[in-house]
Amino acid sequence: MSYTAPIKDMLFVMKELAGLEDIATLPGFEDANLDTAQAVLGESAKLCGEVLAPLNVEGDRNPSSWRDGVVTATPGFKEAFRQFSEGGWQGVQHPLDYEGQGLPKLLATPCIEMLNASNLSFALCPLLTDGAIEALLTAGSEAQKQTYVPKLISGEWTGTMNLTEPQAGSDLALVRTRAEPQGDGSFKLFGTKIFITWGEHDMAKNIAHLVLARTPNAPEGVKGISLFIVPKFLVNEDGSLGERNDVHCVSIEHKLGIKASPTAVLQFGDHGGAIGHLIGEENRGLEYMFIMMNAARFAVGMQGVGISDRAYQKAVAYAKDRVQSRPVDGSAKQSVAIIQHPDVRRMLATMRGLTEASRALAYVAAAHCDIAHRHPDEAQRAGHQALYEFLVPIVKGWSTELSIDVTSLGVQVHGGMGFIEETGAAQYYRDARILPIYEGTTAIQANDLIGRKTVRDGGKVAKSLLADVAATVEALGSQQGPAFESMKKYLAQGQRSLSAAVDFVVANTKGDPNAVFAGSVPYLKLAGIVLGGWQMARALLVAAQKRDEDPSFYGAKIATAQFYAEHVLPQASALEASIVSAKGGESVLALSEDQF
Amino acid sequence: MSYTAPIKDMLFVMKELAGLEDIATLPGFEDANLDTAQAVLGESAKLCGEVLAPLNVEGDRNPSSWRDGVVTATPGFKEAFRQFSEGGWQGVQHPLDYEGQGLPKLLATPCIEMLNASNLSFALCPLLTDGAIEALLTAGSEAQKQTYVPKLISGEWTGTMNLTEPQAGSDLALVRTRAEPQGDGSFKLFGTKIFITWGEHDMAKNIAHLVLARTPNAPEGVKGISLFIVPKFLVNEDGSLGERNDVHCVSIEHKLGIKASPTAVLQFGDHGGAIGHLIGEENRGLEYMFIMMNAARFAVGMQGVGISDRAYQKAVAYAKDRVQSRPVDGSAKQSVAIIQHPDVRRMLATMRGLTEASRALAYVAAAHCDIAHRHPDEAQRAGHQALYEFLVPIVKGWSTELSIDVTSLGVQVHGGMGFIEETGAAQYYRDARILPIYEGTTAIQANDLIGRKTVRDGGKVAKSLLADVAATVEALGSQQGPAFESMKKYLAQGQRSLSAAVDFVVANTKGDPNAVFAGSVPYLKLAGIVLGGWQMARALLVAAQKRDEDPSFYGAKIATAQFYAEHVLPQASALEASIVSAKGGESVLALSEDQF
Repeated sequence: MSYTAPIKDMLFVMKELAGLEDIATLPGFEDANLDTAQAVLGESAKLCGEVLAPLNVEGDRNPSSWRDGVVTATPGFKEAFRQFSEGGWQGVQHPLDYEGQGLPKLLATPCIEMLNASNLSFALCPLLTDGAIEALLTAGSEAQKQTYVPKLISGEWTGTMNLTEPQAGSDLALVRTRAEPQGDGSFKLFGTKIFITWGEHDMAKNIAHLVLARTPNAPEGVKGISLFIVPKFLVNEDGSLGERNDVHCVSIEHKLGIKASPTAVLQFGDHGGAIGHLIGEENRGLEYMFIMMNAARFAVGMQGVGISDRAYQKAVAYAKDRVQSRPVDGSAKQSVAIIQHPDVRRMLATMRGLTEASRALAYVAAAHCDIAHRHPDEAQRAGHQALYEFLVPIVKGWSTELSIDVTSLGVQVHGGMGFIEETGAAQYYRDARILPIYEGTTAIQANDLIGRKTVRDGGKVAKSLLADVAATVEALGSQQGPAFESMKKYLAQGQRSLSAAVDFVVANTKGDPNAVFAGSVPYLKLAGIVLGGWQMARALLVAAQKRDEDPSFYGAKIATAQFYAEHVLPQASALEASIVSAKGGESVLALSEDQF
Repeated sequence: MSYTAPIKDMLFVMKELAGLEDIATLPGFEDANLDTAQAVLGESAKLCGEVLAPLNVEGDRNPSSWRDGVVTATPGFKEAFRQFSEGGWQGVQHPLDYEGQGLPKLLATPCIEMLNASNLSFALCPLLTDGAIEALLTAGSEAQKQTYVPKLISGEWTGTMNLTEPQAGSDLALVRTRAEPQGDGSFKLFGTKIFITWGEHDMAKNIAHLVLARTPNAPEGVKGISLFIVPKFLVNEDGSLGERNDVHCVSIEHKLGIKASPTAVLQFGDHGGAIGHLIGEENRGLEYMFIMMNAARFAVGMQGVGISDRAYQKAVAYAKDRVQSRPVDGSAKQSVAIIQHPDVRRMLATMRGLTEASRALAYVAAAHCDIAHRHPDEAQRAGHQALYEFLVPIVKGWSTELSIDVTSLGVQVHGGMGFIEETGAAQYYRDARILPIYEGTTAIQANDLIGRKTVRDGGKVAKSLLADVAATVEALGSQQGPAFESMKKYLAQGQRSLSAAVDFVVANTKGDPNAVFAGSVPYLKLAGIVLGGWQMARALLVAAQKRDEDPSFYGAKIATAQFYAEHVLPQASALEASIVSAKGGESVLALSEDQF
């Protein structure tokens, strides 16, 4: 059940594909060089491998539990959270001004991957706290920032995001929680929030709930939603804790996976009103939430990468150990380790290829985010921000969708043992299943990718990425060998498929939205496969050049790129057909509701 | 959590695609006409919908339990099993001579689908009993048949298959259980068997364990394995029960799904030896098992179809009920039922299309099995037997692999609620995960499809099926309209892809087995997608002709066929690329063991 952070692979991606050295030239990131990265990743790997990974099974067998409104985290989690906090891990990417470490997102991202690979349930608490910190930094007053952010970074307090209500999931227009002004600048909140991750627990002294609610006379729909901060314990002016606020956990959910992460139903205001304060301006809550959500969605994408890598590591270990059947080529007369069987190889290579491609794409996105924040030139900042925002729904949607396939293959590699809970492979399969759902389902990501990210600028960002892919295809052409030949062929095909899909989306979203949105998720997957393949091609180019320096490591990069080219990229044309068929979405929509 | 058997769809497939009326002309099947089928399916649907389906959740929440060697089935199961047995459902397809109903497999198959859709855990007990009956009918002595088969059919006793041991899963050559002759025709068995489905329980008076074991001096490997029958209670000459035999359940597994089905570890001979009798001849156990296994594998394929349909029904009900978000085309200003959103439609249509295609392919296979058993002409029998045997690994492998995707989509349609166990969608996702593993993993099915079913006859059967597909493509060409155009285009492409794969497999299995077996599972999936698509095309031809008789029903068949053509069949070319790439399996095998 162990987890070894793939530091060498991570550093390869950071340095060779995401441009760590360029990031370290940005103002304020001067210390974020390769040495720093190595040191930080090494320490993170230690904490994740030694402290958090061993608690992962415990969390599944002994989930966080509710009693009389009090939630007790899985045994061991509180102490682990103390170590996590004392190590400063919550603050890696947050500003020095609020006692964070001020490191680039590119450097925080592998730490987040490790955290999630080692213990998805545990990692959700810092993930949501990061969300609360982002929201406060985005829209909070200076006083709110000073009061909350250092405590959230130190781990004394944690944060939550309260969006969902029973009738309002993907559709936040339906939020009904009320916030009534008290005349003293404060509000009293009334309502029920569900699916609140780490909404109640005993790992920290206080919990800062960020809550979407409506003020009286607010406009209907999404334009009448405001963002409030509602602490579990009220905060005195000196920062000390005051009375218990009127927000209570009335139950936690019994879930398929991530069982150690308590998913709370929170009742606001059943005993007179939960005291909260507005963050930013009234009725702009959803807007702030969207800024924050890019970070949260990116982080959930990293959960997909992390759990995929964990499942891969476990499957490899089993496949090397389990002896069963003779080789199909007759090369041995005895039964051999199953990793020697071609189909097991195919499964492991699929798991590996998808994990590496999704990791690379995410790290590249993180680098765009860093440049968008720190580059001295405004046009550069805007350009990289647009690239980051284009990639976020793909990182979120694609990395999580593929984590289901990867963890499922992980079970399959284990054969019958995979279905036995003691083995542990099934936990990854169960845990992963939430990832394409929360923080916006894959369909929500795909709608975002189409509407805000592709159509709004007339496909400009999409086409600039396609031009970059085409340039990589060009560069591949000057190289010899089967890996290059396959990559060139299938990446070029993939580039053409994605181009066709972008053109179709740009041309038809306004006139025939049903036809376009019928292919929204295939469009997102196509973008993931092709842009992930692009990163594999870039890795191939680097690896071929450096091969002699470390033949095993770079040879594996070459082989994995070839595998991805021959076994993953060909799916692009099938997805293109689904999106850009002659009839658009006709067959998706042909059945009437009654005919289902 | 209800289940309504799709009788109309089932009868459509039986009549229009699988040739029920031709089956009813075979000797002994004269009564198996459409009226009989309607009556039988109606009764089966009643039992499954009213008695078994409501127990499905109960089985998940309150699994069968072990205590001191005794396994108690989930509350309600014993009574349900009594009703199942009294209704004669165990005997539907078994011979009249042994108190079965002697009906065609084509008629038994929808009953088996319903049973599995309503309650996968429950259905496993009859499934394994069917296996034991098949084995006895195949290789048992007349006395053994008379002693056991009627009791198994009546439900007084149940049956199990004991193959797996801790070191011997897919690789039965490694079986170590010993059988020592006692000189009186009986044997004493010693060993441990694991993963024995319904290996111990309280629903029947006795359990007939069929056990693979080695006699002294048996050859090593698969040629030294014999088949024994080892009853839980010894059977006296008059058929009454005698002493408790020395086979004991020492534990049951804690599993990801199918929790009501006890998966036993059985210890044979710890107290002096478990008394058993040889079935058939010594050292021919595996051969008998293979004959029996076709039936069991086919049945597991039906489990895939059944659970897919159940997940589909649940997702449709939720999608019609759950109101969330406005339509993307602006056709309403209010939030609407999510079934109106194109991506939800796409998910439901995918679930529906895959379920219908896999059902149709399985029923067609069942009809081949019936003809193979009953046709008066020997050549006809042999030809249909070969077709049936070709289709069995596809029905098993493809229907179960797709059931993972379908049940996963079922969770996704439910959004956050899908991840909550109370909702019920997650159970299907967990339950389905065993299907591509037991009764031979998908890789084992794929090896069988390649080795015994494609290469052994030089691709003859495969090519005869491909010719039939081509004839259907021809027939589509004479018709007008978008469904026909799409189906013609993509089925023709699929036919070419499968042809190319068959040629590759036939040409290279001997010379370059690693290259072929690296694409074994993609080959199986390709065959499933194309042959399933062929059935959808045949359905389309019938539906177009009959459309005016029942516009809603046949219109849905046409729309579903078009959807399958445009969204499923295009995957064929991607699979072809995986199988028949220029480099064969090179990239699958390029990484050394150390590089993983």
